[in-house]
This record gives sequence, C-alpha cells and structure tokens, in this order.
Amino acid sequence: MLTVAYDGTAYSGFQIQQNAISIQEVLDKSLSEWLGEDIKTMGASRTDAGVHAKGNVVVFDTETQIPAEKYAFGLNVSLPEDIRIQGSREVPPDFHPRFTKTIKTYEYKILQRTFPDPLRRIDSYFYYGYLDVRKMSHSAFQLVGEQDFASFTSAGSEAKTTVRTIYDASVRRDGDLITFRITGNGFLYNMVRIIAGTLMEIGKGNIDEDAMPSIIRKKDRSFAGPTAPACGLTLVNIEFPELKDKW
Amino acid sequence: MLTVAYDGTAYSGFQIQQNAISIQEVLDKSLSEWLGEDIKTMGASRTDAGVHAKGNVVVFDTETQIPAEKYAFGLNVSLPEDIRIQGSREVPPDFHPRFTKTIKTYEYKILQRTFPDPLRRIDSYFYYGYLDVRKMSHSAFQLVGEQDFASFTSAGSEAKTTVRTIYDASVRRDGDLITFRITGNGFLYNMVRIIAGTLMEIGKGNIDEDAMPSIIRKKDRSFAGPTAPACGLTLVNIEFPELKDKW
Repeated sequence: MLTVAYDGTAYSGFQIQQNAISIQEVLDKSLSEWLGEDIKTMGASRTDAGVHAKGNVVVFDTETQIPAEKYAFGLNVSLPEDIRIQGSREVPPDFHPRFTKTIKTYEYKILQRTFPDPLRRIDSYFYYGYLDVRKMSHSAFQLVGEQDFASFTSAGSEAKTTVRTIYDASVRRDGDLITFRITGNGFLYNMVRIIAGTLMEIGKGNIDEDAMPSIIRKKDRSFAGPTAPACGLTLVNIEFPELKDKW
Repeated sequence: MLTVAYDGTAYSGFQIQQNAISIQEVLDKSLSEWLGEDIKTMGASRTDAGVHAKGNVVVFDTETQIPAEKYAFGLNVSLPEDIRIQGSREVPPDFHPRFTKTIKTYEYKILQRTFPDPLRRIDSYFYYGYLDVRKMSHSAFQLVGEQDFASFTSAGSEAKTTVRTIYDASVRRDGDLITFRITGNGFLYNMVRIIAGTLMEIGKGNIDEDAMPSIIRKKDRSFAGPTAPACGLTLVNIEFPELKDKW
C-alpha cells in the first residue's frame, strides 16, 4: 500500500484512460520499471482531472523481496515532481481499497483576494468577490450526519445508494484563504465540488443561509449550486478503520 | 508603477537577457501590446533565476490616457498564469526605483518533512533532516542592525559598500514549514540566500549557534554557509518611504 500525494493539474485524473496521461499510468510505469515486474495498481479514490491529493492510497501485488517501508524513498527518485509517495506498508493480500470501509477527508480551498497569487495557484480556486464565511460555516455544519445526498451528485453516478454519513464539515478563513473541509464515509460523484459550489452561492448571498436542509430534502441536483472547479479540491487522506484492527 | 507577483520557476530571472525568458521581457511585451506603445520597464529588484516575488515593483513611461489604477485588471488577462499584477499607481516622472531609498522584505521557506509535498513545491526548499529552529531564530536576530555583510555576498558584486541595515530578521516554524523572514534597507548580491544557507547549517548543528557575530566580523565569504537554492526565496514587498511623503 502506497500513500500518494500529487498536483493533479497536468493529469486527466487518477484512473488510466486512453489518449490522456493519468496518475495511475505514471505510478504503474515507475513501479514496473523499479521492480522489474508488470505492476497494476488499484486506487482507493479515482480523483477527477485536475483534482489533487495529499493522501490517496493505492495497492498492488508484487513478488519482490524489497521491504514495504523502502518503496517511498526508492520510487520518488523516478517519479515526476508533481507526484510523490508519502509512505508505504504491507497489507493483507485480500485487502481491496474500494470494497473496504473508509473515512475520507477532502478540502476545497478558495483564494479570496483582488488579484490571483501565482505562488498559490496550484491548489486553490481564485475568487475576487465577497464571501460570507459565517454563512458558509453555518451551512456546512448542516451537512453532518447520515443523510441522502442525491441533490449533490452529477448525472451518471453509478452508486447504489445516495445515502452517506458526514462526520465533520467546516469552513474557516485564514487571511485571504477560505478552506472547506469535509470528512465522511464516502462521497458521491462530484459531491464535494457540488457542495463547495453550493456553499459559495450561500457565501455570495445567492442562496439563503438557511437553505441547506431543504436542498438536501429535495433530492434534486437542480436545487444545489454549480460544481466548483477541480483545481480547488484536494483529497487530504483516507483512513481504513478495519485495517488498523486486522493487520 | 506596477506591483508584480510571480512564480520564478520557469524564468531566467527578472532582468532581460539574451537567449532566456525573463519576467521583464514578458511584462514589456504584454504592456507594449496592451498600450500600443514600445514600453520598457525598470525593475526595483532584479531577482535571480528561480526566485519568486509577491511584490516586486516596476515603473515605466507611457503616453496613454488609461487611468493608472486600471492596469492590473487589464494586464492580468494577457499575462501567463505565473505572473500577476497586484496593483498599479501613478508616480512622479523622475522616480527611479533603484536610486530611491527602499525597505525590502524577503522570505526563505524550508519545507522540513520526510517526503516532498507536490502541492507546496513551488516556493519552498525541501529538506528532510532535522533543523533546530530555536538556534536559527537566535542567530537570525543577531543580523539586526547596521553591519558590514561582506561575508554574505558572492564574488562579482558591484556594490560600493557592503554595509547594510537589517531592521528585522526572524525564523519561525508553522507545522512542517520553516520561514526565515528578513527586512532591510538593501541586500547584497545573493545575501539572503547565503544567510539562509548559513542559518540552515546552524540549524543542522554544523555551525555553532553563537557563531553569527564572528562570521559577520570576518568579512570573508568562506566563513558563511552555502548559498541556499533559489526556489525557497520570495521577495515579499518593497516600500519606498520617500514616495509616501512626496506623492
């Protein structure tokens, strides 16, 4: 199991696809060359094009005798500078990162200032207008709990159920940077970006600050705000509670 | 007068030169196209290759009737995403940004963690070893005052005197990010990077924590530490105290 951080700007997303460079393709190639085996990784989260990660997780099978802890140092030498392994460990052979209970945390960053800052352009969405962080924070808190988030997913989602549990959701300002942070047991396709877009509409005053519970109850995408741009979204980390007990 | 922020990674430095792309060349070209005049800017600080800025300053003459405050919005549309104007104002025709008293502030950032972070790779220097921030902070404070900084400049400096006044110098840690910040009335060629390199050697324990005053007294480059890499250095801002009174 590798913990992987990346700047998603230059990639078509995590998952391998035709005619576009993905994070997974670069990882598989580096691993295969380094280990001298044909390696196919499996990712815990298939982040979209332009989305970043501080702690996505991939697993793979290998015949190598190299101790699991040595992978990060060895691989980072051959990876491009926008992808860096943050850690590595051995997990049970039957462990599947997508069919295991997870707790995921995402952050959506908004840089709210008059002009863009070239030094902070990678992982934040620039917005020059006013955003009322108190209203956004109030609305974020109303996402917490086991709820049906059908209003916050794009058409084409393959999920069997749209019910998810949000453990924590907050919005805070630090100078000109506004950070929306959300932790839950799973997220529907585009869910975090649609919630971020909805919170921004609330911050602008275009959606009422008390509307979040009714938007959730409608179970209709058209009542939520627009999907916020990918560049502001970062997958912060993924926890596997069962793995801790078992291994 | 334009205040300019840039990610210096892709540039050969601020100043125009043959066979390499500079910040100044890109600014002059955008300004000339936008104003329909042949514009030649003059920079307050000729930052080196790979060095960044949040607030470098350039001035230029123009015949245009466009109000000075409108420049930032207009220019940012045509500039590449690693250069952004942060503000604009009119200054007296005889104002020269390099022959005027200035107060400059620089920051040198060190990302101290086990593995590099792709999302913070632009404006920090990655270092995986231990650095004693208390020792670095103690030594930084000893730079404050009017002193001869001949030990902290590279051969080839054209400065008439190596005496400079440092108003403030500090080192602080915020999580895994160590920031050295220094404010003074001028800096010799490579001075901030050599001081940063010296502070890192003190943080590692390779130079004694009480050595800074004697390194200064030697007036000899060979007693200071190595020149720290350009990627960690950012010109934060430039103040012109006389301009405030005069205009």
